[in-house]
Amino acid sequence: MKPTPQWVKDLKPSAPQGTELIKAERDSSKLSVDKLSNFLFTKEVLDRQATILKILEAEKVFDKSRNYFDGRQDRFVTALARAKRLRQLQVKHNWTQDEFYCANDLISEPGPYGLHATMYLTTLRGQGTPEQHKLFLEPAENYEAIGCYAQTELGHGSNVRGLETTATWNPEDKTFTLHSPHLTASKWWIGSLGRTANHAVIMAQLIIAGKPYGPHPFVCNIRDMKTHEPLEGIHVGDIGPKFGYNTMDNGFLLLNQVKIPHINMLAKYSRVDPETNKYVKPSSPSLIYGTLTWVRSTIVLDSGKVLARGVTIATRYASVRRQFQDRDAPSGTSGENQVLNYSMVQYRLLPLLAATFALHFTGKAMMSLYQENQKRMASAATDTTRGVGPEELQAGSDLIADLHATSCGLKALGSTIAGEGLEVCRRACGGHGYSSFGGIGAWYADYLPTMTWEGDNYMLTQQVARYLLKSARAVLKGNAPTNDTTKIFSTFLQKQDMGCAHDVLGSDSDLVAAFAWRTSYLTFEALKHRDLEKNSWNSLLVDFWRLSTAHSQYLVVKNFYDVLHSESLQYELDPATIDVLHKLFRLYALDTLEKEASEFYSSAAVTVRQIQLARTKSVMKLLEEIRPHALRLVDSWNFPDWQLDSSLGRKDGKVYEDLFYRASELNPLNGLTIDPYPNNDTLVKRDETAQFKAKL
Amino acid sequence: MKPTPQWVKDLKPSAPQGTELIKAERDSSKLSVDKLSNFLFTKEVLDRQATILKILEAEKVFDKSRNYFDGRQDRFVTALARAKRLRQLQVKHNWTQDEFYCANDLISEPGPYGLHATMYLTTLRGQGTPEQHKLFLEPAENYEAIGCYAQTELGHGSNVRGLETTATWNPEDKTFTLHSPHLTASKWWIGSLGRTANHAVIMAQLIIAGKPYGPHPFVCNIRDMKTHEPLEGIHVGDIGPKFGYNTMDNGFLLLNQVKIPHINMLAKYSRVDPETNKYVKPSSPSLIYGTLTWVRSTIVLDSGKVLARGVTIATRYASVRRQFQDRDAPSGTSGENQVLNYSMVQYRLLPLLAATFALHFTGKAMMSLYQENQKRMASAATDTTRGVGPEELQAGSDLIADLHATSCGLKALGSTIAGEGLEVCRRACGGHGYSSFGGIGAWYADYLPTMTWEGDNYMLTQQVARYLLKSARAVLKGNAPTNDTTKIFSTFLQKQDMGCAHDVLGSDSDLVAAFAWRTSYLTFEALKHRDLEKNSWNSLLVDFWRLSTAHSQYLVVKNFYDVLHSESLQYELDPATIDVLHKLFRLYALDTLEKEASEFYSSAAVTVRQIQLARTKSVMKLLEEIRPHALRLVDSWNFPDWQLDSSLGRKDGKVYEDLFYRASELNPLNGLTIDPYPNNDTLVKRDETAQFKAKL
Repeated sequence: MKPTPQWVKDLKPSAPQGTELIKAERDSSKLSVDKLSNFLFTKEVLDRQATILKILEAEKVFDKSRNYFDGRQDRFVTALARAKRLRQLQVKHNWTQDEFYCANDLISEPGPYGLHATMYLTTLRGQGTPEQHKLFLEPAENYEAIGCYAQTELGHGSNVRGLETTATWNPEDKTFTLHSPHLTASKWWIGSLGRTANHAVIMAQLIIAGKPYGPHPFVCNIRDMKTHEPLEGIHVGDIGPKFGYNTMDNGFLLLNQVKIPHINMLAKYSRVDPETNKYVKPSSPSLIYGTLTWVRSTIVLDSGKVLARGVTIATRYASVRRQFQDRDAPSGTSGENQVLNYSMVQYRLLPLLAATFALHFTGKAMMSLYQENQKRMASAATDTTRGVGPEELQAGSDLIADLHATSCGLKALGSTIAGEGLEVCRRACGGHGYSSFGGIGAWYADYLPTMTWEGDNYMLTQQVARYLLKSARAVLKGNAPTNDTTKIFSTFLQKQDMGCAHDVLGSDSDLVAAFAWRTSYLTFEALKHRDLEKNSWNSLLVDFWRLSTAHSQYLVVKNFYDVLHSESLQYELDPATIDVLHKLFRLYALDTLEKEASEFYSSAAVTVRQIQLARTKSVMKLLEEIRPHALRLVDSWNFPDWQLDSSLGRKDGKVYEDLFYRASELNPLNGLTIDPYPNNDTLVKRDETAQFKAKL
Repeated sequence: MKPTPQWVKDLKPSAPQGTELIKAERDSSKLSVDKLSNFLFTKEVLDRQATILKILEAEKVFDKSRNYFDGRQDRFVTALARAKRLRQLQVKHNWTQDEFYCANDLISEPGPYGLHATMYLTTLRGQGTPEQHKLFLEPAENYEAIGCYAQTELGHGSNVRGLETTATWNPEDKTFTLHSPHLTASKWWIGSLGRTANHAVIMAQLIIAGKPYGPHPFVCNIRDMKTHEPLEGIHVGDIGPKFGYNTMDNGFLLLNQVKIPHINMLAKYSRVDPETNKYVKPSSPSLIYGTLTWVRSTIVLDSGKVLARGVTIATRYASVRRQFQDRDAPSGTSGENQVLNYSMVQYRLLPLLAATFALHFTGKAMMSLYQENQKRMASAATDTTRGVGPEELQAGSDLIADLHATSCGLKALGSTIAGEGLEVCRRACGGHGYSSFGGIGAWYADYLPTMTWEGDNYMLTQQVARYLLKSARAVLKGNAPTNDTTKIFSTFLQKQDMGCAHDVLGSDSDLVAAFAWRTSYLTFEALKHRDLEKNSWNSLLVDFWRLSTAHSQYLVVKNFYDVLHSESLQYELDPATIDVLHKLFRLYALDTLEKEASEFYSSAAVTVRQIQLARTKSVMKLLEEIRPHALRLVDSWNFPDWQLDSSLGRKDGKVYEDLFYRASELNPLNGLTIDPYPNNDTLVKRDETAQFKAKL
């Protein structure tokens, strides 16, 4: 391998340099990046991130330079090494859960302990008895047992009740027999199961005396604790390569009449009484409900930051990249236009920039609502002496139903916006967006399953519609609880016959009200189709999906509006920054309104003329006004370069130097010298790839 | 490695079996698959495909079973082996160009000779003189020289005039000096350049006596013909991994004052006179124009088939996959519902199925228009004795302008529908769509660059808008040529003040007319903004993009309509099949109309009530009516299983068996036994991956 010639090393990008362009871009706005970062995350969280980043950067195993080059096997083994080291660091620095998550976030790759650290421990904690905690949770928390959560099967995903794996109670020896009766009963997609876990929580159909009682969780040892070989009656392995997520060993598992003791059924909620051989029902199913709601809420909260990563990369690159002269530039003008100056690029990127903030604020609001409710329920549960009245119980259960529906709809909307938005960002980077070094592609591919797991994004919309229909029926009957949903329905019913006059271009609260109106209109339309016209549920699925999307968009717009009118915002941010955030709110809302125009018309929430003006006047003007602040706005998301691992998204603008360096100096394929002639059988003349790999 | 236990081998999917379901599904329609296949492709082409498939299947090198497992380096070397063998087969069987393309299509992976076989040979043929053909083309056709086409640079893609590489004429020794003055001048993304080519056509700024003459093509030897090492002054290599397309060695190239002789400038159109040292202008630039139009037309034609591959896989899997009972099923009903029965799934898949046909017919129409025009131009060029009149020349040039604009708009629309549609198909497969074995992900990733190359899909829309504005100005002035575009504009202007009454739900021709009306409305709106209100070009880019999309959608709808009314269709197909095609036409048109509702309202092409009815009545009803024929419709695209390489898309419905087999028997990662404990430094306890790889 010849060294890179000196004349190559001497080359620079043509002027102006990326560093100059990006500096000029930063200087063009006075927006306070630090204040905005603090407002988004709090200073404490940002400091924590800086501390952890330093620790990770110092460890060679976390170095990312091989990531884009390695094949699946090497990536998996590296991910395992990282997972081990991360666990060691967690112990060494006595990291809290939040600190551990922060480290994972910076490393930004799914790892082999992923499902152990989340679902396995969580399930044991939440669904195990104290005795089971001692037996299963303690060794798991010490990583003496490594586990996973085995629910999905080859033939069943969303439909949990359709799971085929059975757990049959044997009264004679007080055991359960776990069994896979068909090939489709094979557990499938189970994270950390493929090569790593030696334990699994297995969701299986409980059968007592021939009668099925639905899916329940069973702990099962699947691999030998010493040799790590599968135990007798267990066929387990990795399910193969995927579109992304290849550092994780998603696995399959078949069980052939595997016996486990009575204690292995997680028994906090329901259990089998070993004396009577009878099933004992769960005491409080709503608490289980809670976990799913929490998982979905985190997806909503994450979606803003997930998308912000792509928007950061695309915005920085669009500040450095120049292409064509402005067509209307006076003749004699030289120099090309920054790509970020093109209105078509602004129209693709800036509404997504607005969405990052909208989703982040919405996620935060959801999390506090969730935590508030958890507290209330915990105090109601413990404070039994106080005597909780039926109204209080009802209010709690109404809130849970609302939270559940809200989390379903927002999970679907948030992850769809983030996933599809990342691909828009990638394409907005032109050809280089397609290079792995761009940094968006792999991130997008790893994120995509979020649209399918924890409830497929289309499936979930049925839950939202069911809740809205139920609320609407209650409003019509006059026995509805008082909450935001029933309030907007009541407003709609009152004004329905006089029409509405939403000044969407002039008033923020009218803009929010127009979204509420559309949700209400679509709800009562759907209700009519279902209850009066008696249409089949299946024939209404498209209406339900639209309804859920409309409702979730309303919630996002409303949450953004509420933050703008919050005291903390007024206190923490200066007027200039608040003004830009206000513009982002209007951009998000008006752009959504324009893209969903047809429902806003047909519900008569706005007029045709207003929609036309929304785009041609308001949105285009907002793009122009936000554009000078775009770079500082993405800076406020505070992604370290180490985390982004992107040539295009470099904070210093050295885009072309970085792309070239990675291709020319790091790319192992350049160690292969081939024989190009079709009649020669030789393929590789010389293989020096090892020299490149050694540099990585 | 333990053999798979017998109890695993004995397992079957739970009943009903995929084979039974897919057979029942096929039996539910009487549509003639063979007739429809013949109509789409001709019997000759289908027979050719069958013959070539047999040849390829017999060669071990084309076996696909490693494709989803191998890392980049192995995939590239395998692709090289395949490219060599394919070339040998081409010689052995004396394949025509079409046969060679057919083989490539079946192999379905970009290969290292890709840009040699297309762009290098085409450019030499089209832009070389007879002397240059002898010198460069002949050895290239014999694969004694392997070439590529080096246009794009690190800093410039779409803006060809901005290329930085220079070719300076040296009058003293009658040579050119090729040089990369900056890092951003590095050629980048050049297919087949990274490791394979020893020659390149380099697009460089011609400079004579200090004066630039714009980009021109130069042939340059870049690697030693024996050692394959880069020649003096050449720095060349592969640009690194990408989101897809990793079997191709896209490359970079820097030149340090490399001298080439005068003969190396391709001189069919423009050249440097070595005696006078003067630049000689191109004689007929419109012929060069022609190549780009041809490339874009093939992208349009391909887009239907590209998408059909995803729709085939998703439709077949949705016929086998069952999930949940129908909510309105009478109690006591057992068994789950086929996913294809859900209206939400139909709403996502069937409009894409309709689009495959719409795009295919549109592409075919474009190709014949292109060929007709080429013939006309060739006869005009050779038949100089006949004396071509100015009208005839003008008509030819009008047609070229129309073809150019049409190919730009349809390339953008077709590749966007296909690319985004593939991702919709992938997601419609639920979790398994994310598995590589699903077969959509890799195909999607390899296809994605089509949205960026040969003109970025957003950039291209400016060309369309420019052409439509020019045509509209001509119509207003009364000096427009007679063609379809000017006709629809004239109709619009005549009826503009009396309004229109398109019976879109009752009449097919009115449906087409509504699309024409919307294009015309948007054109005259844009014209007003540009010519009267003097808005900047940049501020109108979003309007232009919408205009181009609208116009291209009109063309697709119109072409589908024309095919339905063609004689060949009536002659070749039976009434039942024609009826289904007619429904697909209406589905494509009405679904598009509904999704773009806002422009159809604001242009007053239809009423709000019509749009509402389009979805709630017509589209939903069409989905129901087309659904029984969906499987046979995708069968008519005639993809061999060997080509699809998809567990989910298997023609026989053995989805779960195939997924399981690939994961359990073929997946090399299952040869790694790891140590799972964080405090043990050992990562891999035993590596038996070689045994898996040997099976592949």
